[in-house]
Amino acid sequence: MNKDYLQIYRRELFERCIPFWEKHSVDNEFGGYFTCLDRDGSLFSTDKYMWLQGRAVWMFARLHNEVSQDKGWLELARQGADFIRKHGRNAEGRVYFSLDRQGRPIHIQRKIFSEVFYVMAMTEMARATGNQDYLEEAREVFWQIYDYWQHPGKLGRPQLAGARRMSSLAEPMVFLCLLEELNRLDQDSRFDGIEKQMTAIALRHYHRDRGLVFEHVDPDGELIDTPQGRLQCPGHAIEMGWFLARLGRKNQDEELVGIATEIIDKSFDVGWDPDHGGLFYFLDTENRPPLQLEWNMKLWWPATEALYALLLAWSLTGEKRFLEKHDRMHDWAFERFSDPDHGEWLGYLDRRGEPTHQLKGGEWKGFFHLPRALLYSIQLLEQQERLD
Amino acid sequence: MNKDYLQIYRRELFERCIPFWEKHSVDNEFGGYFTCLDRDGSLFSTDKYMWLQGRAVWMFARLHNEVSQDKGWLELARQGADFIRKHGRNAEGRVYFSLDRQGRPIHIQRKIFSEVFYVMAMTEMARATGNQDYLEEAREVFWQIYDYWQHPGKLGRPQLAGARRMSSLAEPMVFLCLLEELNRLDQDSRFDGIEKQMTAIALRHYHRDRGLVFEHVDPDGELIDTPQGRLQCPGHAIEMGWFLARLGRKNQDEELVGIATEIIDKSFDVGWDPDHGGLFYFLDTENRPPLQLEWNMKLWWPATEALYALLLAWSLTGEKRFLEKHDRMHDWAFERFSDPDHGEWLGYLDRRGEPTHQLKGGEWKGFFHLPRALLYSIQLLEQQERLD
Repeated sequence: MNKDYLQIYRRELFERCIPFWEKHSVDNEFGGYFTCLDRDGSLFSTDKYMWLQGRAVWMFARLHNEVSQDKGWLELARQGADFIRKHGRNAEGRVYFSLDRQGRPIHIQRKIFSEVFYVMAMTEMARATGNQDYLEEAREVFWQIYDYWQHPGKLGRPQLAGARRMSSLAEPMVFLCLLEELNRLDQDSRFDGIEKQMTAIALRHYHRDRGLVFEHVDPDGELIDTPQGRLQCPGHAIEMGWFLARLGRKNQDEELVGIATEIIDKSFDVGWDPDHGGLFYFLDTENRPPLQLEWNMKLWWPATEALYALLLAWSLTGEKRFLEKHDRMHDWAFERFSDPDHGEWLGYLDRRGEPTHQLKGGEWKGFFHLPRALLYSIQLLEQQERLD
Repeated sequence: MNKDYLQIYRRELFERCIPFWEKHSVDNEFGGYFTCLDRDGSLFSTDKYMWLQGRAVWMFARLHNEVSQDKGWLELARQGADFIRKHGRNAEGRVYFSLDRQGRPIHIQRKIFSEVFYVMAMTEMARATGNQDYLEEAREVFWQIYDYWQHPGKLGRPQLAGARRMSSLAEPMVFLCLLEELNRLDQDSRFDGIEKQMTAIALRHYHRDRGLVFEHVDPDGELIDTPQGRLQCPGHAIEMGWFLARLGRKNQDEELVGIATEIIDKSFDVGWDPDHGGLFYFLDTENRPPLQLEWNMKLWWPATEALYALLLAWSLTGEKRFLEKHDRMHDWAFERFSDPDHGEWLGYLDRRGEPTHQLKGGEWKGFFHLPRALLYSIQLLEQQERLD
């Protein structure tokens, strides 16, 4: 290795990332977490976004469970869990998208993702505390999500005649993510079947002959010649790669590990901007105009996904090209996103790699992608060190 | 004037803009208009967006009504009007957001804007043809919009306890826009009251002491210290300025003309990027991070709004500074957006003014902002020429 990544990642996580969120994001008055935080941690909105509330509970509880019980992380997780259990769900059990500071609901999406991060929060809290209430709520909401996935009309979005039936990569991914979490705690005989089902669906998005992961394919995996059908999100594809690689490792499924590391490899190459470095946010496979205005921006989270995914692929295959790519991603990202003055990463750069926003958190950026990638990378490097 | 703008705008409209849409956007098989058109006019999606269908009907019909009856524009408008009347509304009369090529519905928004452009289309078709069916449908949908505005819950979006009551600038603007259209054809005694009501609401968004137009204020016009409350969209503010200036001119209301031209003046100054030129898409009044990823992009439509608004302000006030600003906007925009090779303008530039997208049309860009601004500017300059 070119650098002492273990030392670098420990410093980034424990000295720059976690302290930022401990200091600036916890609402000691009403509970839950602020996430609209400017470069120096100052608040620019007090609204609370449920994706980010659930993710922060999970992250603090995960740190308690896997790093240290002495840092007060469980309390930081618990106050968030209390807040979302008290305010996060409506009378029908759906999870809101956003709340005001006091917890009054502002917006509810006709999507499953608020529920997904709620389940992650409850699962990790169950693991941290042994309290079965958390696990029961995690189970309840998990099956609710599965039901919505099977019957999307129940989310309230009209199912119109011209809308194309398609599989969205995010769907199998969130199930694989939740099953990794739930499988630690819960022996449910149905999980194996869902894991196989979702793995198969996820793999339909990877067209090996073209080396491309498509965000949307038709239910049989066939390509759709529309902007949605041609859409790629390299960061998302790389994230799917590491989900599948971990699953393959867990199940000792060498074929899956092979495909997963190939996905990481190819998606990194597709996403890397040869002119300015970094990963594009969106691309159109046929180089038609992406509909997303932000397609050529460089976001923090594809970079964090790539850092961990490339390390993981290297550790699973021993192939040096993954380390070379990891070095490239690391140098590019740490130089531009990292902020030794205030901690945490910037989130949004233009194509050239210059910041468009000074914020450290917002509606979509919270205490999740950076600390997760750093923690997973640290754990991998520590294991590697023990093996060496 | 520094340039022969009348000649330049006529060439841009009649030789470069209209021919692009005549040639590439009309679906001769199923009716309606394609709008997902790449730089050279080639199709990258066949989906049809109802905002843009209604706007294109209005634009072609307006050209027929005010420029020439000999160019086939009425037929181009009529085939679009037929398509949206056949496919554009659901059983309850709501207007869809998008349809597939054949007209099957894909998506419906819980917003009023598809309806707004539907009314514009029907009104201008009524004016072009004298057919009362169009006018009756325009009236029907207009009152439906007014009802939705008074009772937003009827659009199906849950009204949640934490959601702030606020006035959105787009609301009074669309009513003022529709009243300008309907007042030509329809003598409805209620329109005067709504015009006064919406003018008052629009003006609450302009805080004269600060020289700023706010996209969202509370129902009494007070400022809201949230990202939404601090949001400015200079192009939108400038568009409101010229709506109000035309209204003031029509009603011989000098005070309103004065405020409206002041809004144009100040909003242009606020929006202009001193480093790279062009108008920012969004800004936060307190320089906090805007939540919009695309805030610093330079879009075509704020430029087109500014071109016409500044000419109008100059013609109403005689003040030379408006011409100076118009020259500045003109030179910047024509150099970067205009495409003599293929016609029509590019839509999306990065902060530096370099294209991020090659498309000429998409989900949001169609046959509307550029031709409307050019036509209105030509009409103004022709009138000016007659006065000189």
